[in-house]
Amino acid sequence: MNTISPLVKALALPLLISSAVIPNLFISNAQANTINHSVSHLNSEKLQHTVPKNIIMVIADGMGPAYTSAYRYYHDDPATIDIEQTVFDRHLKGRSSTYPAPVSGYVTDSAASATALATGVKTYNGAIGVDVDKQPLLTVLEWAKQQGKATGVVVTSRINHATPASYLSHNESRSNYDEIANSYIDNGIKADVYFGGGWVNFIRSDRNIVTEFQQAGFQYIDQYDQVSDLSTDKPVIGLFSEYGLPWALDDSNKYRLTPLVEAATKHLQNDKGFFMLVEASQIDWAGHNNDIAAAMHEIDDLASVMLYLETYVEDNPDTLVVLTADHSTGGFSLAAKGEYRWDPEIIRNMTQSPQSIADQIIANSNSETRSKTQLPSKEQLSNWLSFSLTDQEYSAITQVDAEFSTAHTQYLLLDEVEKQKIKDDYKVPTLAGFYRTALMDIIDKRTNTGWTTGGHTGIDVPVFAFGKQSELFTGQIDNTDIAKKIFTLLGK
Amino acid sequence: MNTISPLVKALALPLLISSAVIPNLFISNAQANTINHSVSHLNSEKLQHTVPKNIIMVIADGMGPAYTSAYRYYHDDPATIDIEQTVFDRHLKGRSSTYPAPVSGYVTDSAASATALATGVKTYNGAIGVDVDKQPLLTVLEWAKQQGKATGVVVTSRINHATPASYLSHNESRSNYDEIANSYIDNGIKADVYFGGGWVNFIRSDRNIVTEFQQAGFQYIDQYDQVSDLSTDKPVIGLFSEYGLPWALDDSNKYRLTPLVEAATKHLQNDKGFFMLVEASQIDWAGHNNDIAAAMHEIDDLASVMLYLETYVEDNPDTLVVLTADHSTGGFSLAAKGEYRWDPEIIRNMTQSPQSIADQIIANSNSETRSKTQLPSKEQLSNWLSFSLTDQEYSAITQVDAEFSTAHTQYLLLDEVEKQKIKDDYKVPTLAGFYRTALMDIIDKRTNTGWTTGGHTGIDVPVFAFGKQSELFTGQIDNTDIAKKIFTLLGK
Ligand SMILES: [Zn+2]
Ligand SMILES: [Zn+2]
Repeated sequence: MNTISPLVKALALPLLISSAVIPNLFISNAQANTINHSVSHLNSEKLQHTVPKNIIMVIADGMGPAYTSAYRYYHDDPATIDIEQTVFDRHLKGRSSTYPAPVSGYVTDSAASATALATGVKTYNGAIGVDVDKQPLLTVLEWAKQQGKATGVVVTSRINHATPASYLSHNESRSNYDEIANSYIDNGIKADVYFGGGWVNFIRSDRNIVTEFQQAGFQYIDQYDQVSDLSTDKPVIGLFSEYGLPWALDDSNKYRLTPLVEAATKHLQNDKGFFMLVEASQIDWAGHNNDIAAAMHEIDDLASVMLYLETYVEDNPDTLVVLTADHSTGGFSLAAKGEYRWDPEIIRNMTQSPQSIADQIIANSNSETRSKTQLPSKEQLSNWLSFSLTDQEYSAITQVDAEFSTAHTQYLLLDEVEKQKIKDDYKVPTLAGFYRTALMDIIDKRTNTGWTTGGHTGIDVPVFAFGKQSELFTGQIDNTDIAKKIFTLLGK
Repeated sequence: MNTISPLVKALALPLLISSAVIPNLFISNAQANTINHSVSHLNSEKLQHTVPKNIIMVIADGMGPAYTSAYRYYHDDPATIDIEQTVFDRHLKGRSSTYPAPVSGYVTDSAASATALATGVKTYNGAIGVDVDKQPLLTVLEWAKQQGKATGVVVTSRINHATPASYLSHNESRSNYDEIANSYIDNGIKADVYFGGGWVNFIRSDRNIVTEFQQAGFQYIDQYDQVSDLSTDKPVIGLFSEYGLPWALDDSNKYRLTPLVEAATKHLQNDKGFFMLVEASQIDWAGHNNDIAAAMHEIDDLASVMLYLETYVEDNPDTLVVLTADHSTGGFSLAAKGEYRWDPEIIRNMTQSPQSIADQIIANSNSETRSKTQLPSKEQLSNWLSFSLTDQEYSAITQVDAEFSTAHTQYLLLDEVEKQKIKDDYKVPTLAGFYRTALMDIIDKRTNTGWTTGGHTGIDVPVFAFGKQSELFTGQIDNTDIAKKIFTLLGK
């Protein structure tokens, strides 16, 4: 046993035995994968470096355990008898609790959980990189930068949204979007690559933060295809939309996150290594909307990123990839209402989000009659949905105008205080919202999908990891443990 | 490395390094526990026997991932800042998919999943130990018996219910309860210990199977406290109720499963080892009822069993314990309806199930007026619930009689075909059912619990394991893998 270095001992690295002598029955593919990783690791690295040079932290916002189970069946090829394993299944390590600081109960928001993942400290819901006393907390990204590593942030939300902001900023509230954007310059530039959305907060009438980044030596891009023409000797900020990116289902490239991540890894690669945060931000938003079609396609985009990262780790074995969710969203269940059935077939073929189809229905509307729409035919609507509506389903759609009118009339009769409360909750009835809901109802019934909430739930989330030191993330852990382990791997 | 036996290599046992040299930051309690287990194991066993002598398979029916997360918060001591780890957290190894054979889609029932766990083969929903062609499949319990091991079954359902039946019997349908009970004698006696419920199928007017067991040399008990007076030289059948046992919340001992498991392990212990199936059957039933109070107390009973099994493995390190669920039930979520909150406080103090309280309300009823009840006072009802009802909550209870009357009148107006359909679905309106639902509504609102179904869902379930060879159950696996691994550990 004296061939083992003290560093390995210090890291509690499980030593695994060559897979050559293991009978197949004993190991699942996932285990074989772990074993192969560890073996190649022991041999090729010769234990000289037990700390990964590059760390890629991937957060799948809202992707609780039901989502990755569902994705397996969504992803299943019905033409084969077997249920194919997904890229997530290959790398499952365990699960993580997500509860915030006691002041916020047992159910977290994205800010508190991202702060826990970024700093190792529990805080209140809404907090961005600050503790319960609103004091700033060191983040793993800041620490990596201080250690001379390159750093990057690639997200499908605004780059100043709760999750990336918790790694890059310190603010008492996630809602202070302009303040958080300002801090990206005012408190020192902390990353070398920023990809995501956010014109609304970065190119403002009172301040143009993009210009300030350019003055600080950054190149700026605002089109996806510009990632292929980046200068490698200048840092980069890429903002591709006003708020978040379009839904994967509606975007020009349904796998839009992969080229961004690929460009970022290439840009960040250097002798001292890098820390990169990737967020598939909109799984959460699909969950808030209770939109299973949008959710599955966002996860498909993330799965594509994970497949790319598998090849990256293959080529760069001194890289650790950790993937987890900050919480689950929507109380999503595969099956509902007593039926033992979940049928994702119709979702697989969809090419537009329910939201986009609802917008198209409204675009057909007659402005003279305001809320009255001229409905597309059953065939036209079936075409947009990529599945054939039944007469009953189409009939439900024809009633949406009237339902909206009733709800909107009731809303207008409310007093100003009640109206403001509904506005604050983003629950003002809109015709597009009513159409979206009607379309999602049809999809939920067809797929037999259930939901309990438009918010978050307190279920533990899965933890996936591969590459160097991925074994550290095995078993039941807490979201704060993930930051603590990364800090340690970064020498803190 | 030459101190490692070939058998260990063959079993792909991860070698873990003494915890003494591991800095705390690197390991969670769960990991430390694993490491300690493995270390004591390596030292004390000296790698002579890598196959566990005793295998204890525990099935928590319906206990999907939300349930074990929820149990952590239910179990949390609010007087301390920390959230205490549960016995489940300590032993998490990964998770398992549960889908049945393609003919039944992606959502399993208990019979198909128990058959997969018992035999390693996917089958149709409803199948008991038979494949899609209704051909019998060898079960791990039958194989263990053939290898000369003692075998036992300890459950809180009828001992011929879907899960235990899938280990002990072969039948095309779980509904054939009498046939399955008959097979326990007619197809050869397969176990040395049977504990659970089931007088309805075992002591019948047409056949007394208990007497037949006695004639075959078994001792019979029908009271919990008789487990302490068992003769160790005779096998035992203990049936303690007509159908399943009472809810843990209502039983004479809320931790009723622990003494049964303890008595069974003592009875089964022998030089050749044993295979035992334990099922916490009623977590599933609480899920079907959408009864969070009953569910948490059933899991508390199971947690007590797991604490006992920890001590058993400590004393008998040549034992493997595997715990999983066959599926999740109810689409249960911690938080619902947009609120970021799950508050289990009121459940912790409850001492009766909503069902039992509903029955007590009915027991107060005036038989002259049939469905009219004389309601207990708000104070009396609060006392039964162990929390103080608000006026609004009590007011909801006072309306139940009228709501039931309306529903029952509508039911009586249905034609015979419609009535039969409702009977087949067990959905005939009952006054007790209406009271139970009203009580559970109050509890769901107080705790902010969500549900999507009275049936099962397709989410992956957690896998826990400890003791000898528990590392084999790490990562993402399938329910059939669990049987395959156990078969291999049993030399098949
Ligand atoms: Zn969210
Ligand atoms: Zn069930």
